[in-house]
Amino acid sequence: MSPAVSLGELAERFGLVLQGSGEAVVRGVGTLGSATPGQLSFLASAQYKGQLATTAATAVILRAADAADCPTAALIAADPYVAYARIAALFDHVPAAEPGVHPSAVVSPDAVVANGASVGPFCVVQAGAVIDEGAVVGPHCVIGPDCRVGAGSHLVARVTLVLRVTLGRRVLVHPGAVIGADGFGLAFERDHWLKVPQLGGVRIGDDCEIGANTTIDRGAIEDTVLEEDVRLDNQIQVAHNVHIGAHSALAGCAAVAGSARIGRYCLIGGGAGILGHLEVADKVTITARSLVTHSIREPGEYSSGTPIQENRLWRRNAARFKHLDELARRVAQLANKDSPR
Amino acid sequence: MSPAVSLGELAERFGLVLQGSGEAVVRGVGTLGSATPGQLSFLASAQYKGQLATTAATAVILRAADAADCPTAALIAADPYVAYARIAALFDHVPAAEPGVHPSAVVSPDAVVANGASVGPFCVVQAGAVIDEGAVVGPHCVIGPDCRVGAGSHLVARVTLVLRVTLGRRVLVHPGAVIGADGFGLAFERDHWLKVPQLGGVRIGDDCEIGANTTIDRGAIEDTVLEEDVRLDNQIQVAHNVHIGAHSALAGCAAVAGSARIGRYCLIGGGAGILGHLEVADKVTITARSLVTHSIREPGEYSSGTPIQENRLWRRNAARFKHLDELARRVAQLANKDSPR
Amino acid sequence: MSPAVSLGELAERFGLVLQGSGEAVVRGVGTLGSATPGQLSFLASAQYKGQLATTAATAVILRAADAADCPTAALIAADPYVAYARIAALFDHVPAAEPGVHPSAVVSPDAVVANGASVGPFCVVQAGAVIDEGAVVGPHCVIGPDCRVGAGSHLVARVTLVLRVTLGRRVLVHPGAVIGADGFGLAFERDHWLKVPQLGGVRIGDDCEIGANTTIDRGAIEDTVLEEDVRLDNQIQVAHNVHIGAHSALAGCAAVAGSARIGRYCLIGGGAGILGHLEVADKVTITARSLVTHSIREPGEYSSGTPIQENRLWRRNAARFKHLDELARRVAQLANKDSPR
Repeated sequence: MSPAVSLGELAERFGLVLQGSGEAVVRGVGTLGSATPGQLSFLASAQYKGQLATTAATAVILRAADAADCPTAALIAADPYVAYARIAALFDHVPAAEPGVHPSAVVSPDAVVANGASVGPFCVVQAGAVIDEGAVVGPHCVIGPDCRVGAGSHLVARVTLVLRVTLGRRVLVHPGAVIGADGFGLAFERDHWLKVPQLGGVRIGDDCEIGANTTIDRGAIEDTVLEEDVRLDNQIQVAHNVHIGAHSALAGCAAVAGSARIGRYCLIGGGAGILGHLEVADKVTITARSLVTHSIREPGEYSSGTPIQENRLWRRNAARFKHLDELARRVAQLANKDSPR
Repeated sequence: MSPAVSLGELAERFGLVLQGSGEAVVRGVGTLGSATPGQLSFLASAQYKGQLATTAATAVILRAADAADCPTAALIAADPYVAYARIAALFDHVPAAEPGVHPSAVVSPDAVVANGASVGPFCVVQAGAVIDEGAVVGPHCVIGPDCRVGAGSHLVARVTLVLRVTLGRRVLVHPGAVIGADGFGLAFERDHWLKVPQLGGVRIGDDCEIGANTTIDRGAIEDTVLEEDVRLDNQIQVAHNVHIGAHSALAGCAAVAGSARIGRYCLIGGGAGILGHLEVADKVTITARSLVTHSIREPGEYSSGTPIQENRLWRRNAARFKHLDELARRVAQLANKDSPR
Repeated sequence: MSPAVSLGELAERFGLVLQGSGEAVVRGVGTLGSATPGQLSFLASAQYKGQLATTAATAVILRAADAADCPTAALIAADPYVAYARIAALFDHVPAAEPGVHPSAVVSPDAVVANGASVGPFCVVQAGAVIDEGAVVGPHCVIGPDCRVGAGSHLVARVTLVLRVTLGRRVLVHPGAVIGADGFGLAFERDHWLKVPQLGGVRIGDDCEIGANTTIDRGAIEDTVLEEDVRLDNQIQVAHNVHIGAHSALAGCAAVAGSARIGRYCLIGGGAGILGHLEVADKVTITARSLVTHSIREPGEYSSGTPIQENRLWRRNAARFKHLDELARRVAQLANKDSPR
């Protein structure tokens, strides 16, 4: 059952300016285009402004500049998306985990579980592991030797912390994530591979989020590090000894090779790749699917790749790419001949 | 033990025309090149026609046009691959799951498991979950709050349905898939990220297939949707609020960003990407590893990328790409000078 | 507690030449730049030579040619990285698994577990499965019907062997890996997809390593095969009927489509892709994120893609790529006009 909240209450609680009656009540959220009466919507991007006039929402969170065009009650915010995020949390009713260790869990006598922590069904907590107060370890998690789950962190389900992994406070980890597996370290000896022991760990800062089926390997000698408030989407691969600066966000399927160092406040697009042993400065944006092949020293937006086209046209252009150097040489020749001495 | 079936029986049961003796018996399948006597093979692609003359198979499923060249018995089909798929199912003897809830499973009193359904070892079925008749939930699955597994669906093992996920009928989900995790929704507030609650769910239509370690996030406000008969290979990432039309198939490692809308009967190649908030029309083919950066309105085949070459040559061409605009301008200048006024 | 080892002991045990006192003792390893006294470091790449003069390590493993510049004791090796890998294993103290079947595991009466093998908490071992002597099956593994885990193999945790999977000896599999799921086989019948039964299995040779969340599908008719000493990093996708030759290594997020055949001693870079039904010769290197679209017959290094640039410049160049064929034609015209008849 969703709670009912009056607009007056919302305005007061979140410090917003109310336009219209404070008596009106909302019980949930909806997009401008699909909200029904009783729902709250928001307008954060100019792209959706056209939907404002006809929305059936009871109220809309928006900027002061858009308030005059709003046919319904409005909550005026400097940043409507931020205000929406805070208000929407009121309607996010996930059942709370019960504190305590589920009777089915297997917890080593050499592990420490804080009193207020929750350890779900079928968890395995191995020797030397520590689960701090208020942490929720959902069903099917494996917390390996010498791993620590910081206070208030939440492992949704089926998360594996392999070895020497430290999660800070309020870290959220989604199902299928594997943190602290062996880095991919191999030495080639004559005619076969020799495994290089991976003796480091992983350190994840406070307020990080790790997406479903994302993998973060532990370091070869030193640790793999995510500073605080790093946000990783699903299916991201972070290799050993990577260092990611605070507040950086990586979209789904991005991959970072060994010992790369990413700065603070970076935005790495979906499927983008960063080669090993490179440095990426603070405030760098890499667009989706681009591959970083050399260090980037300046903030800014960077890209690689070619545009999508009808396959018939693309084939012709792609074939020419194979001889682009020749083409450039020929043009240089023509230009030389053409220019007066 | 594989069943033995006579060719006569197969012809009758699957409505095929038999060439040769109906008495011959097959006990399994093999490729044209490696089949041994007692096995059934098929010829569906002209590429393999050369192997027909020397096959050791007892019989071959093929088109009428190839029958004259077949040295063995033949089953003649309009579409030999379709006929093969149906017949091969006879030899696919996976042990059937036992109905009932395994004693080790943890099932909430507020969940509903139909009588004929099977819930395997170490499953966790949470409050509000429903498992319909004939569904098989293999070992180590987590069925979260308000999730529904439709009649006849099969979760092979270690599947996680996180929250508000509805699977239709006969949906097949492979191990490691995570459906219904939080979408990647973040608002930037001054100097840090603020999580945007993900209040929607996921709806998966009848007869869909979801590959191993594939992830499908739940919607931010509305649902993420797969219509019926959508086929996802392994390690695919489907972000929140994506909508995929019926009968579309996505090959391994494809990724679809938030709120993208893919039409019906689309074929998305391995590792291809589709950016957020785009639309892809019905019957569009995207070749492997291409990146869709704008909406595609017309059916057809689309591609991006460059061809693979020896690294030595590629380096030269790639270096020229960085100055392609300049090159094009220079050519335009030369052409201008060259043309009579 | 790390063991303390004297340099004299190390020199003797690993056949290295000692420079300096054999009495000095090391208790762990460190990088040249961060090692503290009591640690052993190594110099394997010229790139790090600059750090040698100021290292605080007690001793450094290096080549004879670098020994004169070493300010500390040195262990001289023909291949310092190989020597490091062997020595570092001394300091890699992972708790050993206890032999025997954990009481929480569910083992079919029709499965065989060798006496010396270890089966961890919440494992499910199904009918027809075999776990050989010395194998360690960590927590939360599912060993499906007709699967075999070879002697001395180690499934770290949460590994799924679905059906008809054979692992050789000393195979190491990291968490979240799914081996033997259905290949992505579909026949299109009129207006919908028909599943093609996947009747083959997977064979993994001795000394292979399979990364976290990597997926290897079983074959459609014949088996998917990895020969011995194949090394797969995390999140790799290997489709049905792929064959990978001995000693090849694939970096994170690489993907190999159905029936592709990769030779021996190949190096496949991170995120690289190989299309289906292709052959890649022995000793081929594919650089990161390149896409192999045709068979490669000769050893060597191959690449595709374009270099990363500032987005503003990249946009211009990318726009020109869409008309590259036209550009080349225009240049050919100009050259023709330019050349004397």
